[in-house]
Amino acid sequence: MTNSDQQTDLVVASSNAPSTALDRPVPSDEDRLARAALSRVIEPGDPATLKTFADLEPLEIWELLRTKAPGLERWSSRLAKVSPEGDLARAHSAGARFVIPGDDEWPDQIEVLTEAGQQARRGGTPYGLWVRGTPNLRTLLKSSVAIVGARACSSYGENAAAELAGGLGDHGTTIVSGGAYGIDAAAHRGALASTGTTIAVLACGVDIPYPRSNESLFHRIVGEGLLVSELPPGCSPTKLRFLARNRLIAATTQGTVVVEAAIRSGALNTANWSEQCGRPVLAVPGPITSRMSEGTHLLIRERNATVATSVADILEAISPLGEHLTSYPHTPATPEDALDHDLRRTLDAVPVLRPSPSTRIANVAGLDHDTVQECLETLAQANLITYEDSGWRLSPTQRRAP
Amino acid sequence: MTNSDQQTDLVVASSNAPSTALDRPVPSDEDRLARAALSRVIEPGDPATLKTFADLEPLEIWELLRTKAPGLERWSSRLAKVSPEGDLARAHSAGARFVIPGDDEWPDQIEVLTEAGQQARRGGTPYGLWVRGTPNLRTLLKSSVAIVGARACSSYGENAAAELAGGLGDHGTTIVSGGAYGIDAAAHRGALASTGTTIAVLACGVDIPYPRSNESLFHRIVGEGLLVSELPPGCSPTKLRFLARNRLIAATTQGTVVVEAAIRSGALNTANWSEQCGRPVLAVPGPITSRMSEGTHLLIRERNATVATSVADILEAISPLGEHLTSYPHTPATPEDALDHDLRRTLDAVPVLRPSPSTRIANVAGLDHDTVQECLETLAQANLITYEDSGWRLSPTQRRAP
Repeated sequence: MTNSDQQTDLVVASSNAPSTALDRPVPSDEDRLARAALSRVIEPGDPATLKTFADLEPLEIWELLRTKAPGLERWSSRLAKVSPEGDLARAHSAGARFVIPGDDEWPDQIEVLTEAGQQARRGGTPYGLWVRGTPNLRTLLKSSVAIVGARACSSYGENAAAELAGGLGDHGTTIVSGGAYGIDAAAHRGALASTGTTIAVLACGVDIPYPRSNESLFHRIVGEGLLVSELPPGCSPTKLRFLARNRLIAATTQGTVVVEAAIRSGALNTANWSEQCGRPVLAVPGPITSRMSEGTHLLIRERNATVATSVADILEAISPLGEHLTSYPHTPATPEDALDHDLRRTLDAVPVLRPSPSTRIANVAGLDHDTVQECLETLAQANLITYEDSGWRLSPTQRRAP
Repeated sequence: MTNSDQQTDLVVASSNAPSTALDRPVPSDEDRLARAALSRVIEPGDPATLKTFADLEPLEIWELLRTKAPGLERWSSRLAKVSPEGDLARAHSAGARFVIPGDDEWPDQIEVLTEAGQQARRGGTPYGLWVRGTPNLRTLLKSSVAIVGARACSSYGENAAAELAGGLGDHGTTIVSGGAYGIDAAAHRGALASTGTTIAVLACGVDIPYPRSNESLFHRIVGEGLLVSELPPGCSPTKLRFLARNRLIAATTQGTVVVEAAIRSGALNTANWSEQCGRPVLAVPGPITSRMSEGTHLLIRERNATVATSVADILEAISPLGEHLTSYPHTPATPEDALDHDLRRTLDAVPVLRPSPSTRIANVAGLDHDTVQECLETLAQANLITYEDSGWRLSPTQRRAP
């Protein structure tokens, strides 16, 4: 389909940097073609592949499959249609590139999946990532959080996802999620509305707008962030591909936040992978009356997930020790700080100089008389007010200007 | 005020059982009068008292105070007004009794406060409990849970408190709470609406309806459950008495559930006491947008409180190991069980015999065509449906009647 010059051009498209942080050699064209071919032939995260080819390099695996080595008939059905050069060309015309280990853009942290995959007996590090959009994948992922959750989310969950994603975005943290409607879409929208950016990891080719209702969202993501998939252009999503995709979301980020999830939910699968990768799992609590929060409460209760109520909670969990410690106002700084709402309002209603009866103070405070009576007694015990001439006024220490 | 016959009558009113579970002797009249006097003279949970009289019996303490022993002037101001006989009479006419260690009704578990008080340097076991209502205090508390929370709660919190209290009540668990409006009142109402009952522990005398807006609620509680206080009749509530009261709620129950609480909240003080007493602390999660859930999320996140989403969660936490284990549907029993909503609906829409095109299946399922396409592919991969004659039908294994 493509002539040999064009192939060479495409092949080097993504390898123009001298080396990665791991100081790997620039990947060879053969390696890139082999990996592109494998991404077409082998189903993402396929357990049988993982088992059969555990110790082989992609070039060796592709050589075995390409030459139809005996015993590998399982993989032969798709071989006839494979054209890595064609896929690279197709990606190129869709504005996409194929990023592999050794490329400047390759996010090394994803290779945690090699060991995690062996433990889980499925998954593994993908052969490469098809990437569509302008920014550098590795750079965007340096500070990144996965925000995932139910498709059939509540408006509470949608708001929480967008708020948290926006806050993290403003903090320079990239959001990573799937491409589904519900929590995924809300997280992307929140990030796009912030100064940060977002990455959608898809269970289909990066040229396939699935679900179609998110097509304009994908368009916006390509404009500012990235679409990523381990599947070559043109591939359709399947249930198994969604599950395999979840591991990429978990492995590329510093932690996963589940916003809403029913008890049986794909988001819990992403949380599993995050745990398997040694990354923190956070869960957003919600009303106990909402089925959509059952999964997040389960994560907190049974799986020791961290409670995520704010951007600060999330930053604290994903940051190196002590860098983003959330501070709660445990101890009041002054006696007045310790006052609750009613006491505060009552105190504010007590005159500085001319003593006032409790009925008038209640009127000023806008509280009922019983409450104010109790508050006045407490304030007097704390020496904040005094009783003089049938009325209350501030005690001498309180008469200073604030 | 009262003649000597009446006194004796009142004194023995609550000690008609031979002995308690601890096989203590029936308390003497002197002991009861001394304890009643101390409950009038000494401010609940007063740190100075705890320190000064740590190793003395109530009779000894009362003797020192009554005889105005030197160095104890701190306690002398209230001495003139003390009349334990008068307080017992006043209680009697208010339908109340004074329960002390050795009485049949005395809840032994409250004595955890002796050690907890020494550790906290405040608190301690109360000298006795003024009790108003018909049931036996010890019996009611045998299976009991504290449900506490904010006064200025949200309607979400109010509903959660009432639902959980009602469910626990139907399970034979007594609810214990304060007398405040908000979560406290909702918990009592929930319990009263169930087959169970409820106890309000007050920071004032059991004859004082505070807050007045809860007067009819207290009336209902006296009819079916109990009002309890360590303060003698006629005492008014103060801030310090509320804080001291919280330790009684924590110590008499098998665990404390905080439903809603702002960051600075009395309910968190009750949770502290529960922890101090070695009882489980549970917290009900809520929307992260609600200030009223900040305290409960703090408890879960920072203080390792157990997430309480249901009656089952609470029963599991307060029960002896393994008795009320909550079971979550972790693993689906059949392949169909694993299907999410869309897949289930799509599968239900696939005809048994005559193959149907995807457009018609989408119509039947009431789902959009893209979703149904994806679902059909997944169902086919799972061998639940097959493609024949340009349409889909159930696979042979699925054609059996359900």
